[in-house]
Amino acid sequence: MTEASIRVALLGTGAMGEEIARLVMAKRGLALVGAHARRAARAGLDLGTTFGWEREAGVAISTDLAELVDRTRPAIALQATCSTLTDAWEEIEVLVRRRVRVVSIAEELAFPWARWPGRARALDALAREHGVAVLGTGVNPGFVLDLLVVALSGVCHAIQSIRATRVNDLSPYGPTVLRSQGVGLSPAEFRAGVERGEVVGHVGFPESIAMIAAALGWQMSEVRETREPIVSSVARHTPFVAIRPGDVAGCLHSATAVRRDGEGRIELIHPQQIVPQAEGVSTRDEIVIEGTPRVALSGSPEIPGGIATTALAVNLIPHVLAAQPGLVSAIDLPVPAALLGDARRAVERLRRGALGVGGSRGS
Amino acid sequence: MTEASIRVALLGTGAMGEEIARLVMAKRGLALVGAHARRAARAGLDLGTTFGWEREAGVAISTDLAELVDRTRPAIALQATCSTLTDAWEEIEVLVRRRVRVVSIAEELAFPWARWPGRARALDALAREHGVAVLGTGVNPGFVLDLLVVALSGVCHAIQSIRATRVNDLSPYGPTVLRSQGVGLSPAEFRAGVERGEVVGHVGFPESIAMIAAALGWQMSEVRETREPIVSSVARHTPFVAIRPGDVAGCLHSATAVRRDGEGRIELIHPQQIVPQAEGVSTRDEIVIEGTPRVALSGSPEIPGGIATTALAVNLIPHVLAAQPGLVSAIDLPVPAALLGDARRAVERLRRGALGVGGSRGS
Repeated sequence: MTEASIRVALLGTGAMGEEIARLVMAKRGLALVGAHARRAARAGLDLGTTFGWEREAGVAISTDLAELVDRTRPAIALQATCSTLTDAWEEIEVLVRRRVRVVSIAEELAFPWARWPGRARALDALAREHGVAVLGTGVNPGFVLDLLVVALSGVCHAIQSIRATRVNDLSPYGPTVLRSQGVGLSPAEFRAGVERGEVVGHVGFPESIAMIAAALGWQMSEVRETREPIVSSVARHTPFVAIRPGDVAGCLHSATAVRRDGEGRIELIHPQQIVPQAEGVSTRDEIVIEGTPRVALSGSPEIPGGIATTALAVNLIPHVLAAQPGLVSAIDLPVPAALLGDARRAVERLRRGALGVGGSRGS
Repeated sequence: MTEASIRVALLGTGAMGEEIARLVMAKRGLALVGAHARRAARAGLDLGTTFGWEREAGVAISTDLAELVDRTRPAIALQATCSTLTDAWEEIEVLVRRRVRVVSIAEELAFPWARWPGRARALDALAREHGVAVLGTGVNPGFVLDLLVVALSGVCHAIQSIRATRVNDLSPYGPTVLRSQGVGLSPAEFRAGVERGEVVGHVGFPESIAMIAAALGWQMSEVRETREPIVSSVARHTPFVAIRPGDVAGCLHSATAVRRDGEGRIELIHPQQIVPQAEGVSTRDEIVIEGTPRVALSGSPEIPGGIATTALAVNLIPHVLAAQPGLVSAIDLPVPAALLGDARRAVERLRRGALGVGGSRGS
């Protein structure tokens, strides 16, 4: 095949960026042509060296995004630098103005109309003006507690309520994440931390609820979120923290919204804690739709967040390349699919529908 | 709202047609404007009267499809008359040539490139020529053993094998279905029936496997199907049949395909029997993806087939109205979603992406 590979740029050289780089380099039809870091100290370093790989990646890190794009001419960029739309905006604007498509794993980008409808409209207009699509994705928000719920709703005649639960394990995570979930605090400190906005719990409930509601055509009331301490009755420890009985092991974060006419309800539940098995808690994903029919699906352990988020970011490259210009979300695109063949063929398939796919028999 | 409702025609006045008619009439923004039956005796009858409803539907049944379309000018037609592409073809051609979009629940239409690549290409060309989209859907093939598998694969870096299982209960079904699954036969009669093509088992494995493979970019070898008798060790009975110990309670139908290079495998398992609980068998849907990560999701009881198929047919109306012209499949369209708001708004959303969807905060 002489057809050139799809040129991909990476933004972000943290743990997620490293996994994304590995994946892009491993996929047929994709070429990692550039990497951008916010940390000035990384300018000019090889990506592989930075990650401590055995060999160089042959991709030098740039800290000047515009220069990187002009030099390497990527067709698409994967953004793994931040969580909020505010923080993501400047990089996305540089990319879009240079006609580079974007897949971002910033949580708020999964459905930016939820918190920032005005900015979402502005970004949509900018993306259309420059003829490129911009997508936010990730495991949560972006998949388990929203897109999968939407897909399952497709078999329903009617729905009274939706409850989706994701129970995960924070044990692998370091101090920054643990602090954001209040791990190690006393219950009183936890509540004070919630008040001060230091214990934030999960970022993504407004996005998930708005995505589900938009797909179903439900008009919702305001999203109500609660953050409760998960108080441990036993000692628990990880490489990063040790807690005693009575300490907080994590945050039980939930969100609820009801339909404006009262005829429907969405409840999302996401307890995050260290060593859940210490008290017999199994990690899991679970979706229950009370409707016609009742639909209940669950899996244990939960779909692992880091792998799933980096997988979605790379697997959706063909979808974004085939998409109409504009700011899009998971419910606007064909279902995600593992990218296991040539990415260029996947783009072709998505552009023209399934036409021409080989079959097992003649006609 | 003065904007006219979306005009929908129904083809088929059996059990599925009845449920579809009910749904279309209940949805905001849809209007059931015509109904077609193959049975000549139904010509001119009111749809509600035919179904034994308490009141007339105000829709007269026609047995002349071209006349029906020319008179009622539907934007889209739902076909619930048959299972094979061969049998579906003539009606679809009449519709497409009159620029009517089509959603069919014929099993082979779920992914017609599987058995009939040539005819699928011809139908795609015809649909493009006339500027309309044609979609096949249903619970299986079309959702549980294929589209849902594809969606879950989206969180994977790599996949070694996929196994999806659907265990259902044939107890509600009448003689035609029971005969096709060999219920009530002796094991020897069952095997002879399979040989003669009278015990067919499930229709849809080639479609499901081809759909998954197309989405993943896997090139597969031929699909191998096996049909084994489920021999009951106890007496079982339904309103339609009674079997003794040693008789066949149903058909364990499985299909397997491996990647041409041997590096991947898809296995679909669908035992269908009467009164499975008589021997402690729980009905269920289960998807296991062996890969990075391993993904396993299951639900019991299984998603009920009749409700799910009629739901998908109606819920996907907006998707087909918003689709590019051509023969499309579930993996070409945005994820299905329960249609719980106004269908016209759903079409608008799908046409322009999520732009303009209201949010919970200002920006």
